[in-house]
Amino acid sequence: MKIDINCDMGEGFGTWKMGKDAELINYVSSVNIACGFHAGDATTMRETAKLAIEKGVKIGVHPGYPDLQGFGRRNMNLSPQEIYDICVYQIGAMNATVRAMGGKLYHVKPHGTMYNAAAKHIELARAIAEAVKAVDANLVLYGLANSFLISEAKEIGLKTAAEAFADRTYQPDGSLTSRNEENALIKSTDEAVGQVRQIVESQTVMCVDGSKIPLKAETICIHGDGEHAVAFAKAIWEAMRG
Amino acid sequence: MKIDINCDMGEGFGTWKMGKDAELINYVSSVNIACGFHAGDATTMRETAKLAIEKGVKIGVHPGYPDLQGFGRRNMNLSPQEIYDICVYQIGAMNATVRAMGGKLYHVKPHGTMYNAAAKHIELARAIAEAVKAVDANLVLYGLANSFLISEAKEIGLKTAAEAFADRTYQPDGSLTSRNEENALIKSTDEAVGQVRQIVESQTVMCVDGSKIPLKAETICIHGDGEHAVAFAKAIWEAMRG
Amino acid sequence: MKIDINCDMGEGFGTWKMGKDAELINYVSSVNIACGFHAGDATTMRETAKLAIEKGVKIGVHPGYPDLQGFGRRNMNLSPQEIYDICVYQIGAMNATVRAMGGKLYHVKPHGTMYNAAAKHIELARAIAEAVKAVDANLVLYGLANSFLISEAKEIGLKTAAEAFADRTYQPDGSLTSRNEENALIKSTDEAVGQVRQIVESQTVMCVDGSKIPLKAETICIHGDGEHAVAFAKAIWEAMRG
Amino acid sequence: MKIDINCDMGEGFGTWKMGKDAELINYVSSVNIACGFHAGDATTMRETAKLAIEKGVKIGVHPGYPDLQGFGRRNMNLSPQEIYDICVYQIGAMNATVRAMGGKLYHVKPHGTMYNAAAKHIELARAIAEAVKAVDANLVLYGLANSFLISEAKEIGLKTAAEAFADRTYQPDGSLTSRNEENALIKSTDEAVGQVRQIVESQTVMCVDGSKIPLKAETICIHGDGEHAVAFAKAIWEAMRG
Repeated sequence: MKIDINCDMGEGFGTWKMGKDAELINYVSSVNIACGFHAGDATTMRETAKLAIEKGVKIGVHPGYPDLQGFGRRNMNLSPQEIYDICVYQIGAMNATVRAMGGKLYHVKPHGTMYNAAAKHIELARAIAEAVKAVDANLVLYGLANSFLISEAKEIGLKTAAEAFADRTYQPDGSLTSRNEENALIKSTDEAVGQVRQIVESQTVMCVDGSKIPLKAETICIHGDGEHAVAFAKAIWEAMRG
Repeated sequence: MKIDINCDMGEGFGTWKMGKDAELINYVSSVNIACGFHAGDATTMRETAKLAIEKGVKIGVHPGYPDLQGFGRRNMNLSPQEIYDICVYQIGAMNATVRAMGGKLYHVKPHGTMYNAAAKHIELARAIAEAVKAVDANLVLYGLANSFLISEAKEIGLKTAAEAFADRTYQPDGSLTSRNEENALIKSTDEAVGQVRQIVESQTVMCVDGSKIPLKAETICIHGDGEHAVAFAKAIWEAMRG
Repeated sequence: MKIDINCDMGEGFGTWKMGKDAELINYVSSVNIACGFHAGDATTMRETAKLAIEKGVKIGVHPGYPDLQGFGRRNMNLSPQEIYDICVYQIGAMNATVRAMGGKLYHVKPHGTMYNAAAKHIELARAIAEAVKAVDANLVLYGLANSFLISEAKEIGLKTAAEAFADRTYQPDGSLTSRNEENALIKSTDEAVGQVRQIVESQTVMCVDGSKIPLKAETICIHGDGEHAVAFAKAIWEAMRG
Repeated sequence: MKIDINCDMGEGFGTWKMGKDAELINYVSSVNIACGFHAGDATTMRETAKLAIEKGVKIGVHPGYPDLQGFGRRNMNLSPQEIYDICVYQIGAMNATVRAMGGKLYHVKPHGTMYNAAAKHIELARAIAEAVKAVDANLVLYGLANSFLISEAKEIGLKTAAEAFADRTYQPDGSLTSRNEENALIKSTDEAVGQVRQIVESQTVMCVDGSKIPLKAETICIHGDGEHAVAFAKAIWEAMRG
């Protein structure tokens, strides 16, 4: 069994583009498509769904906070009920978009601050898991390995995929280093491939302080918005799935 | 068989409220719920869906143009493809919201300028009908009687409900008098009841110029946003369904 | 010298209305007009500015967080630079609107979560004060009495007006009880008038725990969005300025 | 006297970027900065204003329709009053932003559909001119040569700059070929330089049907969003101002 590699896609908005989706999609097995709250719009969603269906990758919903200007990366203190409501809404919008194109949803992966907040706050994790279940109990919830997102989803009977990151560094407690920190991102392709290989082969990861912690992952996230994103994706794909 | 009476609902946004939904719902048999583009938001949608499920009325999607400030009443030259995309999106968002509450969608009725534009422009009517069919071919499309919205929906095999209005005046060509005209609205309850009664009983309507035209309707629209909306709705309900 | 009484106005958005501005304005000496970020839009701003100019009250800018759906009451972790930028923007938009109608700005009062966050976080308070100064150093900054908003504004040489609330309860540390608490609001007109009278006459206020703390205020805020807002405003106006 | 060369700038939004502003600004004498309605946001505006002040180019406001997703290029039937209101708002927001950075506004140039609609509809042209005058009667209004935007601005005493385009083709009536037409854009740098040279030297332009019409321009617009925008700008700059 080869590990799943996922990437966020459809993150443009109107005339603004982001990410080389058409190239990157050759090096992933699943995609998370933005739904219009932090990025994306109905037209971009349809076009991205079409691309994903043509390439045969697994299609996921990528719900985010209602903040286009902040790209869903600014924290907002939404209540669990508000989180539930906007997840149901976004999953539904994407489900219809994908089905109208003849495809089928496979998973849901929260975006940005929603992802990080749910990893640490049990009520938010539960709200997201309940939203997924309410719309389609067969959807798989992707979430940070060892986080509340995974444990709460399991608790209510959802299928899950524990996620690890190719290009993000880890803290000793298993959380990702904040994007506000200088060493949040791994910029060398070799190091990223090395991190993925270690995660897959030994189910551990090296932390920023040099410690090694257990990390059992079922899917690896790569990013599409860096300068060398395509070369990066290709290297990881070839190392892990080639 | 009694005629269906429908009303737009869930037209608040965030803290802003509009319409006395909780009272009006007692006098209608179907509701059209806003989906967040011209009004409504994920939370308001859930609350309105809950109310509709409790009352046992038929639940419809009310997709509109992406213009909260203009309440979907300002024309925007969207292409048929853009109309298709935003209809699929909104129908999907509402479908998930209603299903998550244990309910089921019955129909789709476009809002405001989308409704009026589609009545007159065959490509827009077709785009909306195709969007409905792509998401769920069992949904009924509500549209202005004798308009392209009805004929295009029939053309592709959708079920339809031709709509007439209790409180809007008619032009000799069967179109509604524009809201920009002084005589667009019928303000007297008696006159509105009279117009509905004539439509239901003789399948005709009096136009603003005094002429009488044929008008075959399967659903009657009442409005929830006027000062006397509740009394108005009650009178029509009692006359037609009491 | 009679104490200034201020009220938020122009808090509708598009077709949605909020507050009985035309009545309330008779019982205040200054108004804070929303600028399109948490409420208001260019047309509502112009209409509200016109009303304020006609009535001769002092006109203030009421900048808020970019969150219409949450009415600027949901916290967002904006950086001081982002806060500065959106304050300059909103003050400028309102300044032009008021000047185009022949009026003149007197003050700036941040809204909702921006107001509360700036009361407690010195960097946010400084960012707002710097934005006001950068646009027009003669504007008066309204802020919670004893808060960073007042002290930072004074620090950079702005004129200030320390604010107390007619219908909000106080914590022993001088902060307002959070709107999430049950006892956040004073609902009795008599109690509100009593609180205002105590603040003005003895420069103290009773806290929720029964303690009395010093509170020196130069302006009193009343709210326009409650059911009895007009009667409430009238009673305070007559007690303090009649 | 050398002819003014202007370019739209600051057309990103949040994380999304557009145009190579930092390079292009070397080849223009005036810039039109987006104000948050069709593109741009408070932070982007400040950064773009800073760049423009450093480079010493003339700074203009670039107000647009309230449609981020459509980039202000979808027609919306706004009333003259709504156009007036949103122009006052946007000019004010930009004025404060530029003044806070120590700069000064020189002109206003409407964007996209607002520009085109105002060229042809006298009431919209008048609304825009009145908005400019109401905020600052010293601002220069840039508009399509021979259009209502110029004539209405002159009518009420505003200074104007008649605009011609380097890379857009002309119709025999002096209007621009619609962007929906295949031959709307001039893609060859040589042809664009040739068109500008002809406009400047002989005050005429060749139309798409081969006819030659008079065209008296005081400013030339170049675009920043094409693939070869920088090379294009450089060529025109060197030909005309080198």
